[in-house]
Amino acid sequence: MQPSLHAVDLIRKTRDGEPLDAAEIHFLVAGAAAESIPEAQLAAWLMAVFHKGLTLAELGELCEAMRWSGETFDARDLGRAVVDKHSTGGVGDKTSLIVAPIAAAAGLLDPMISGRALGHTGGTLDKLETIPGFRTSLSLAEMRTVLAATGACMAGQSARLVPADRTLYSLRDRTATVESPYLICASIMSKKLAAGLDGLILDVKTGSGAFLRDPEAARFLARLMVETGERAGTKTVAVLSDMSQPLGESAGNWIEVAECCALLQGERSPMTQDLRNLSLVLAGWMLFLGGGAPDAEQGYRQAERLLESGAAWQSFRAIVSAQGGDLSVLDAAASYHAPGARLVIAAKETGFLNGLDTTAFGWAVQRLGAGRVEVGDAVDAHAGLTMHVKLGQRVEQGKPVCTLFAAEERLFAEPTRLLEGAVTIEAERREPPPLIAEVITALR
Amino acid sequence: MQPSLHAVDLIRKTRDGEPLDAAEIHFLVAGAAAESIPEAQLAAWLMAVFHKGLTLAELGELCEAMRWSGETFDARDLGRAVVDKHSTGGVGDKTSLIVAPIAAAAGLLDPMISGRALGHTGGTLDKLETIPGFRTSLSLAEMRTVLAATGACMAGQSARLVPADRTLYSLRDRTATVESPYLICASIMSKKLAAGLDGLILDVKTGSGAFLRDPEAARFLARLMVETGERAGTKTVAVLSDMSQPLGESAGNWIEVAECCALLQGERSPMTQDLRNLSLVLAGWMLFLGGGAPDAEQGYRQAERLLESGAAWQSFRAIVSAQGGDLSVLDAAASYHAPGARLVIAAKETGFLNGLDTTAFGWAVQRLGAGRVEVGDAVDAHAGLTMHVKLGQRVEQGKPVCTLFAAEERLFAEPTRLLEGAVTIEAERREPPPLIAEVITALR
Repeated sequence: MQPSLHAVDLIRKTRDGEPLDAAEIHFLVAGAAAESIPEAQLAAWLMAVFHKGLTLAELGELCEAMRWSGETFDARDLGRAVVDKHSTGGVGDKTSLIVAPIAAAAGLLDPMISGRALGHTGGTLDKLETIPGFRTSLSLAEMRTVLAATGACMAGQSARLVPADRTLYSLRDRTATVESPYLICASIMSKKLAAGLDGLILDVKTGSGAFLRDPEAARFLARLMVETGERAGTKTVAVLSDMSQPLGESAGNWIEVAECCALLQGERSPMTQDLRNLSLVLAGWMLFLGGGAPDAEQGYRQAERLLESGAAWQSFRAIVSAQGGDLSVLDAAASYHAPGARLVIAAKETGFLNGLDTTAFGWAVQRLGAGRVEVGDAVDAHAGLTMHVKLGQRVEQGKPVCTLFAAEERLFAEPTRLLEGAVTIEAERREPPPLIAEVITALR
Repeated sequence: MQPSLHAVDLIRKTRDGEPLDAAEIHFLVAGAAAESIPEAQLAAWLMAVFHKGLTLAELGELCEAMRWSGETFDARDLGRAVVDKHSTGGVGDKTSLIVAPIAAAAGLLDPMISGRALGHTGGTLDKLETIPGFRTSLSLAEMRTVLAATGACMAGQSARLVPADRTLYSLRDRTATVESPYLICASIMSKKLAAGLDGLILDVKTGSGAFLRDPEAARFLARLMVETGERAGTKTVAVLSDMSQPLGESAGNWIEVAECCALLQGERSPMTQDLRNLSLVLAGWMLFLGGGAPDAEQGYRQAERLLESGAAWQSFRAIVSAQGGDLSVLDAAASYHAPGARLVIAAKETGFLNGLDTTAFGWAVQRLGAGRVEVGDAVDAHAGLTMHVKLGQRVEQGKPVCTLFAAEERLFAEPTRLLEGAVTIEAERREPPPLIAEVITALR
């Protein structure tokens, strides 16, 4: 018989680095979900985890307990492999809008549950909602219908999925325990696992625009997530990808959708080469993990064919249509971009673009109106920025580095200040970091 | 102008080992006292302190902020030096009842604010309340009256003194952050400083019956408290004293009062030699710190004279009388001891008493009825135990080691089990630890 558990005893164990057993982890998570353990005790436990970490066994149990803390989604009975991609967030990171349609076009199912703009990074839901009529609040039944019909759906997190994460995430935000890799892993993986995945590719960002700029910290988080996914029976792989400049050409809401429409419609530009390449790498892994390709390289080539043939574009249109979006704006997406004001930021000197403070660019995008200051704020569909050079390219003094978009001129003051010193131009060219630094698979 | 402070930013700093400034510490403490900072944030901060510690400057500010978080007591205008003693708690530790009367008899003022039984240790208030009529709940005005009339008072902590500690202590208890030396120091020193002391002697216990058994941990806490007291302008000294056996002869409530009455009345026994000696050391330091003796050694001799002359006994009677206690029971204190049942624990072998698990003896005393299981439980005035041998003495198999007292025979079962294996008798004599291992004064 299980002796009765007391939160204070479990806090003490974690505080002292003694591992909790499965029953103890489940007791804490159930208490968080039911709000039967006081927030003060959960907060102390979170801070103890921040300092002492968890074993892989504890982390696995934590993810499992959170995963099953509410309703779950499971489309595996539809007879196709269920796969997904998750990114730790960046500036101009819009691969979701490319990879979900590719996966769908490949005959896989991608129940993509996405988030909103957070801090200096954008949110897939905010981008998609700039398509007139597009609904991101789907019930689990609606998600299933869209998924069965189109092969993918792109929706927000339902309140009934992983309620324990809702409690813990809100507490972490107030108690300075957000940055623990263990707690980040549990939050991400519990939600991904609750969507019933056969395969998952994780895009872990490093560099000046990532939450985890330190490659070692990013690698550690990636390893935790891969081990946790595999432990739960989901084939999981992570790539460490470069976020030392905005991905692709633009960062904002509608302009990112427009950039994806152009790419899906076959437009090619040196500015979006990195977006295309990373999307195909991620989609290639999804195809491999979903059993649709013998390895990730062949998955890449298959994904490329689906992109080039227009099959992915048709999938994207089908998903948008199934979620209530107006298709008419997609065909001339660029012309639908209607910001109230524009401001060009010019190069201060001639030389090579050797560095960007991409987080500053992210905050500039947020302050232009594309992100939120408070939860629940409206976002401006047309605010954002477009880059005109990539790292390693030569720029001439006075020539445009980027163009800012906002509703009004007065909104340029703060972003302009944020971008002071965010651009490094030097006489000697430095080689930009590789797009993919490393692929992390499970320890065997 | 001070920018507005947010608890989450201060938690993050402490979490990362960055010191908080005075304004930041005061913001947290004011938020704790006013309950304007949510418990979850205070709990996370406490756990961060547990792991990262505080600088001496931060700890000093924490004590100051807590000290001034509510009403304070100040008797320094009465024209005599105000001194006190504080012990970290032990088994049979009854020096308060000896040293306060000695300090009073020496012409000093001792506003002794005491606690109740906690865990395996006894509480001065519980002991004093076994004297019929004795009131420990005094208002600050009543404390002042008793102090002015008798030179000492022995009362409980008023709810209006150091309210921040009330909030933080209750949280620490629920969040496994009790054991942090920084938080222990802040809790003890803020309350002592709020009593407006010129001098303070700290009795930090080590050994099998202490909360901090590890001498290094005890020494560290003692140093923190001495530095904090000196920083706040109170002359502060700590002694590390031995708690590897119950102090004196008895542990309980009334039997401890009776033991003190006997000592104050001039009775001498090898069983109470350690109690007498430690009380005189502590009182000697009080006399020195209060300016009544040129050094602690001469303070000791002066305290000894006040004990031997009966002056301390007269002071004790005056304090008891001023707080409403019935003096008639004090004169024949031993005969007032009326437990319902007694049980002798005999030596299992012949040899030298080389060790005691004094914490087990403390829990036995609590389970006999002298302590509490829940806050607010009544305690049995007559429960407890009397030792018949001290460490290092020879015992014969079958001869009494101690006698247990309780209201009923059935209450002996658990204490007897707790004491199984708590007595170490060996053929070879081991030298007991010294009564005082070290005296700790401020770094100069």
